[in-house]
Amino acid sequence: MKKVAVVMGSAHDIDVVSGAISALESLDVPHEVHVFSAHRTPAQAAEFAQNAADSGIGVIIAAAGMAAHLAGVIAAHTTLPVIGLPLSAKVIEGMDALFATVQMPPGIPVATVGVDASKNAGLLAAEMLAIGEPELAQKLFTLRKEQEAAVLNDNDEIEKRYNA
Amino acid sequence: MKKVAVVMGSAHDIDVVSGAISALESLDVPHEVHVFSAHRTPAQAAEFAQNAADSGIGVIIAAAGMAAHLAGVIAAHTTLPVIGLPLSAKVIEGMDALFATVQMPPGIPVATVGVDASKNAGLLAAEMLAIGEPELAQKLFTLRKEQEAAVLNDNDEIEKRYNA
Amino acid sequence: MKKVAVVMGSAHDIDVVSGAISALESLDVPHEVHVFSAHRTPAQAAEFAQNAADSGIGVIIAAAGMAAHLAGVIAAHTTLPVIGLPLSAKVIEGMDALFATVQMPPGIPVATVGVDASKNAGLLAAEMLAIGEPELAQKLFTLRKEQEAAVLNDNDEIEKRYNA
Amino acid sequence: MKKVAVVMGSAHDIDVVSGAISALESLDVPHEVHVFSAHRTPAQAAEFAQNAADSGIGVIIAAAGMAAHLAGVIAAHTTLPVIGLPLSAKVIEGMDALFATVQMPPGIPVATVGVDASKNAGLLAAEMLAIGEPELAQKLFTLRKEQEAAVLNDNDEIEKRYNA
Amino acid sequence: MKKVAVVMGSAHDIDVVSGAISALESLDVPHEVHVFSAHRTPAQAAEFAQNAADSGIGVIIAAAGMAAHLAGVIAAHTTLPVIGLPLSAKVIEGMDALFATVQMPPGIPVATVGVDASKNAGLLAAEMLAIGEPELAQKLFTLRKEQEAAVLNDNDEIEKRYNA
Amino acid sequence: MKKVAVVMGSAHDIDVVSGAISALESLDVPHEVHVFSAHRTPAQAAEFAQNAADSGIGVIIAAAGMAAHLAGVIAAHTTLPVIGLPLSAKVIEGMDALFATVQMPPGIPVATVGVDASKNAGLLAAEMLAIGEPELAQKLFTLRKEQEAAVLNDNDEIEKRYNA
Amino acid sequence: MKKVAVVMGSAHDIDVVSGAISALESLDVPHEVHVFSAHRTPAQAAEFAQNAADSGIGVIIAAAGMAAHLAGVIAAHTTLPVIGLPLSAKVIEGMDALFATVQMPPGIPVATVGVDASKNAGLLAAEMLAIGEPELAQKLFTLRKEQEAAVLNDNDEIEKRYNA
Amino acid sequence: MKKVAVVMGSAHDIDVVSGAISALESLDVPHEVHVFSAHRTPAQAAEFAQNAADSGIGVIIAAAGMAAHLAGVIAAHTTLPVIGLPLSAKVIEGMDALFATVQMPPGIPVATVGVDASKNAGLLAAEMLAIGEPELAQKLFTLRKEQEAAVLNDNDEIEKRYNA
Repeated sequence: MKKVAVVMGSAHDIDVVSGAISALESLDVPHEVHVFSAHRTPAQAAEFAQNAADSGIGVIIAAAGMAAHLAGVIAAHTTLPVIGLPLSAKVIEGMDALFATVQMPPGIPVATVGVDASKNAGLLAAEMLAIGEPELAQKLFTLRKEQEAAVLNDNDEIEKRYNA
Repeated sequence: MKKVAVVMGSAHDIDVVSGAISALESLDVPHEVHVFSAHRTPAQAAEFAQNAADSGIGVIIAAAGMAAHLAGVIAAHTTLPVIGLPLSAKVIEGMDALFATVQMPPGIPVATVGVDASKNAGLLAAEMLAIGEPELAQKLFTLRKEQEAAVLNDNDEIEKRYNA
Repeated sequence: MKKVAVVMGSAHDIDVVSGAISALESLDVPHEVHVFSAHRTPAQAAEFAQNAADSGIGVIIAAAGMAAHLAGVIAAHTTLPVIGLPLSAKVIEGMDALFATVQMPPGIPVATVGVDASKNAGLLAAEMLAIGEPELAQKLFTLRKEQEAAVLNDNDEIEKRYNA
Repeated sequence: MKKVAVVMGSAHDIDVVSGAISALESLDVPHEVHVFSAHRTPAQAAEFAQNAADSGIGVIIAAAGMAAHLAGVIAAHTTLPVIGLPLSAKVIEGMDALFATVQMPPGIPVATVGVDASKNAGLLAAEMLAIGEPELAQKLFTLRKEQEAAVLNDNDEIEKRYNA
Repeated sequence: MKKVAVVMGSAHDIDVVSGAISALESLDVPHEVHVFSAHRTPAQAAEFAQNAADSGIGVIIAAAGMAAHLAGVIAAHTTLPVIGLPLSAKVIEGMDALFATVQMPPGIPVATVGVDASKNAGLLAAEMLAIGEPELAQKLFTLRKEQEAAVLNDNDEIEKRYNA
Repeated sequence: MKKVAVVMGSAHDIDVVSGAISALESLDVPHEVHVFSAHRTPAQAAEFAQNAADSGIGVIIAAAGMAAHLAGVIAAHTTLPVIGLPLSAKVIEGMDALFATVQMPPGIPVATVGVDASKNAGLLAAEMLAIGEPELAQKLFTLRKEQEAAVLNDNDEIEKRYNA
Repeated sequence: MKKVAVVMGSAHDIDVVSGAISALESLDVPHEVHVFSAHRTPAQAAEFAQNAADSGIGVIIAAAGMAAHLAGVIAAHTTLPVIGLPLSAKVIEGMDALFATVQMPPGIPVATVGVDASKNAGLLAAEMLAIGEPELAQKLFTLRKEQEAAVLNDNDEIEKRYNA
Repeated sequence: MKKVAVVMGSAHDIDVVSGAISALESLDVPHEVHVFSAHRTPAQAAEFAQNAADSGIGVIIAAAGMAAHLAGVIAAHTTLPVIGLPLSAKVIEGMDALFATVQMPPGIPVATVGVDASKNAGLLAAEMLAIGEPELAQKLFTLRKEQEAAVLNDNDEIEKRYNA
């Protein structure tokens, strides 16, 4: 199976980004993690993106906040699907990162997930790989069933408490 | 190769959505097009999503405006990757559709592209399929080179005009 | 009297949603409470909505946050009036939930109340039932009078403190 | 059957508001139409609201733009359900009217529909009345089926055009 | 001298509103304070506004949050100048109150100050009264000079610390 | 009676600003009109504001768009009440001008009206002057009555058309 | 004197960007114009930025819309001052470009001007060069005086028309 | 070398603004610090700006929040480049300050950095001075290399932890 690369713009983002890593681990998706800044290490970010396909990477998750260019910069250097994970910062509620990630120009798409939605970034990467990996697709289906069961279980408890 | 399904919430969206279809056609990606409304034909939208994987579909593009639920509804019924294409309407500049598409709850991701960014939705779908299709990956690479050449050509003309 | 069903997208929402339940209890409006997720248990949410009218339900309150689809999904499967209660989450101040709830397409309305305005959701449900229930209408009128008296009492205290 | 009253803040709003009137007409819901301004004729707006229940009115639709107080003012003088229809004006995309309509204080709910969503305002009023009117409920159900059929018909045409 | 009436929509607003009262006290402007809700005590709010001019009131400050109608409701019942003080609440950063206060329809102005800007509401009321009260105008001028001196004093300290 | 000064930041604003001038003319309020830019003629704007009170001016209306500093600059140089009229420009819907006008720091209030709400700026200025001018107060009251009559007349026509 | 480089992300932006070029021409500031896309020609954009200082360039203006990364990408590859000119597109009023340009991470500043404010981008570049070029500083001062005179002239006309 | 002047609108802003001062100190850029309010000490702010060039100042940083006029007022009185540093306050997330700083009218540019981005304000000032100061340019280049090294170092640690 191809690997998922998780790239964050700053090591400080690891607390949020770890949600993506956990999602990948729970599905046994091979992955690697890096810190590359679109602005402070642009050459390394570009080089990483250019070599990604040849390194056995199938999907790249790029997490960044504020004027979040990381996903766009990586997408500019590869035709692998790039998932943009906009991160919230102290002000403006992550709207800056959302706009800077999702509003890409024609020709260079970024698959954007919600603000700070790191778990979904991981799951989306797995869904992409699962197109050609029936076993992973099955794991994703099982995870959905577990999610469903968890909600139904919560429903049982709430119904017992309120509808008795 | 798996197919890409393009679903729009209303037949009126076809003018914007055709940008996605054209992108798929230009890359020879097999695709199909449907109109299913998350609110007016919820059963058909759900049924479509549930059967999509078994119908040979690999990626679904869902285009909708306003309280744009279509991508989320489809994502809820499949673990195939779903690309959400938020459409602008008469008011609020597509912000409503963007939020309603991208801010999905943990567990059910939607790969969101920019407001009205239909070409990017098509390209992103192709990128996902290309993970396991080297020939398609090559076509995407060629397209990027053409895009690059077009910009460089524009640059030549502008430089001639202004920097002579 | 018909019942009010209160549905929340996640059991974590119960703290806010309990404001709606309390309002219904204070007016002796029969009600039931459920947890159904538009995305994690879409089939159950749809089935609930389809059967609601036949189960003696007259009004449904649907509470959800982020890309809040729950009210829309339920509204898509019933012609009972559906009250959408948008919930705030960690970022974007509930604006995402507000847009995703209120901006419904033509043909499928959702009666939206303010962000986190659970008490008003409960009262609005009661007002709808009270169209055909004079006794409940009287209770609502009494509640308004009590609200009025509370403000006038506050006014007395403030006037004493500041205008003496 | 109780009547629906449609109130607009200015006669200039009639073009948008007529969508609500048409919806009511198509469902044979008895209705009346008025122009009362929350700011220019506050006494008449209040008096209308206070007498509405005794005049055989069951639901009130209040349409206004900008700092749209009309729905709130009417809701303050009646416990009938009040539907707020926020209207867009030249600037700010109707966001001002949406906030001014939906963000009501605890105790005085307004059932808000989308910006300029007049058809939905009419349908929502009908849904409220239909709680106690099985025949109207049936008409609403039929309308939904027609909406569904229209989408499915569009789908047929699109599928023929693109998937042949 | 005419009096300034300070009206708040809820007694809970007193902590913010007291900034306006303090400003009036510091300038010896006669004033009175009330709690009237546009929605919970609409009749009393209207009656207060209608009688304000005859009660010796020259300016009214109206403070409210969320769908802040109080200033508009009062302005609808008097031609005295009404100062709207939008208050922030738990979500949406006071934007709802700001829009609901400032975006008044043609014919009924509200003089809006910043979100939670209670001191400025008090000073603005004083400035209005001072048009015909030279002594109060002099006090306002003195206050400005004191404000200026305070900034210049801060400047001295900062300059000493950093520019030595 | 004191005069009202209407100042605009650019002569291009005259089309919107003329609404304020018309309002003043219709009430026989003495007024004068100027073009001073906070940024292009800051010295003249400041000098005008400093001399305004001594020139018989009682209220100043300042109209500007974008980073609309004009009202704030004038308010900084006078303790006369300053009405800020934020103007919309090609982008951002006048939100920039609204924020730049209304969010003044403590100590220097600006009485802000709605975006492009020039008529209300004129009426608000008249209301301020009318505090000490009973005849003008009477004219304002008459104008309100005329506004009321106009709405009631519209109501009659709408009622005839729709409620026959 | 060092040169100003004007870079735009797409040749379609030339209509807006020409405002910057005109400003530079009017001040006799040497300049060159290029089209480089942060996403379609990232290598050329980076190479241009890396060589800019050695090519005699003193300031770079980068104009782009949507998820406007151009200024940030260029700033990442040079320590010359980079002026970001955010451009409006069909939706979201240029807010996306503004956020994506101005909200740069610590360490890599971009000097952002207003949305579509191309003339100001040109003038700002000239102001930067003028720090060490007294003759250019004098030209900028003269331009300001002309701007001032133009406003004063407009003021004369308006005063004649309205204050006669 | 010319000096950088750092001006803040209130001494309370020193905690944020000190980030700019530290950046200048770390680069040995001569600087001075002042407190001038656009609204409370407009004359001193204007006088400072008018004399800045003659005092050996080459760049001015102006930091202010809310309706942040300081940068604009200073820019109006000098043709030195002015860097606007918008500060966040209790509400509206600094959006008011951002708009009030960046959306300057044609002819009077302000070089705006991100909300609360004081370090970038300092670096940008240094970049401007460095146009004519090769030694400072070298220091900026070194700082970039250190930033790069810090990210690469973080990357090493993250890679060790996650990719072992």
